[in-house]
Amino acid sequence: MSAARTDAERVELANTALYEAMERGDTAAMDRLWLDDPDTEVSCVHPGWPVLRGRSEVLRSYALIMASTDYIQFFLTDVEIAVVGDTALVTCTENILSGAPSETEGELGPLVGQLVVATNVFRRAGDGWKVWSHHGSPVLAGREDEEEDDAAEPGA
Amino acid sequence: MSAARTDAERVELANTALYEAMERGDTAAMDRLWLDDPDTEVSCVHPGWPVLRGRSEVLRSYALIMASTDYIQFFLTDVEIAVVGDTALVTCTENILSGAPSETEGELGPLVGQLVVATNVFRRAGDGWKVWSHHGSPVLAGREDEEEDDAAEPGA
Repeated sequence: MSAARTDAERVELANTALYEAMERGDTAAMDRLWLDDPDTEVSCVHPGWPVLRGRSEVLRSYALIMASTDYIQFFLTDVEIAVVGDTALVTCTENILSGAPSETEGELGPLVGQLVVATNVFRRAGDGWKVWSHHGSPVLAGREDEEEDDAAEPGA
Repeated sequence: MSAARTDAERVELANTALYEAMERGDTAAMDRLWLDDPDTEVSCVHPGWPVLRGRSEVLRSYALIMASTDYIQFFLTDVEIAVVGDTALVTCTENILSGAPSETEGELGPLVGQLVVATNVFRRAGDGWKVWSHHGSPVLAGREDEEEDDAAEPGA
């Protein structure tokens, strides 16, 4: 892979790496990818979950999810990256295909498709970018071209 | 109200103002609260919705939600604010009570309670803070003290 040249390219690599670490179940990579700064607490919202805060709670949640997921693959679409100073904000759609362990040992359970949207915030750290916040949520109210659907929730 | 003294206090006021504007159905306040910078596109995810991007799309979505909501009140709990340079990241729980118009004219429909968690990102703009990104999502998988619940979704 050639060296990333712009900040936006570096941020996109960091964003992709977050999902690749999930796919591989790579807890060591997760540890490296998340911001490690005692002055700046990280936060994470998995789809349908409450807010998790702090590196240890966030990394533990990923370890738990990865341990209970035999197979997961992310197809990222609609990735938009904004870099302002030392902060970057990424929004994207996660098209997820995942399978939990089967009840029959050695087999994969049925695959499930999921549509999730994410807002990921990164901080510049040295010459790289680290995850400061991840917020993923299930898309329940139709696709983008139907966003004015009456079924949408009234919450902010 | 006395003048806010620290950045964290100013950010908390901006965060509260966002929810108060929703409660009042105040589209003009919404317009003032969201970042207006041609170089930095705003983004917004309402609970269950796909990503909306750009001021006009975001403000239109609020106008639509406010027009279809007769009553909405937010009780914010668990508000955490991190300020780093010109960026602030707020996570909080929105305890929402809302009512849609009743089918009987002049009456309020049944009130519905909703638990939503939000990640709100603010940018410093002059001596105030403006909303750069809002991401709200329904809490489906138990409260914080049950976050390891097996029912949690496997998505990142």
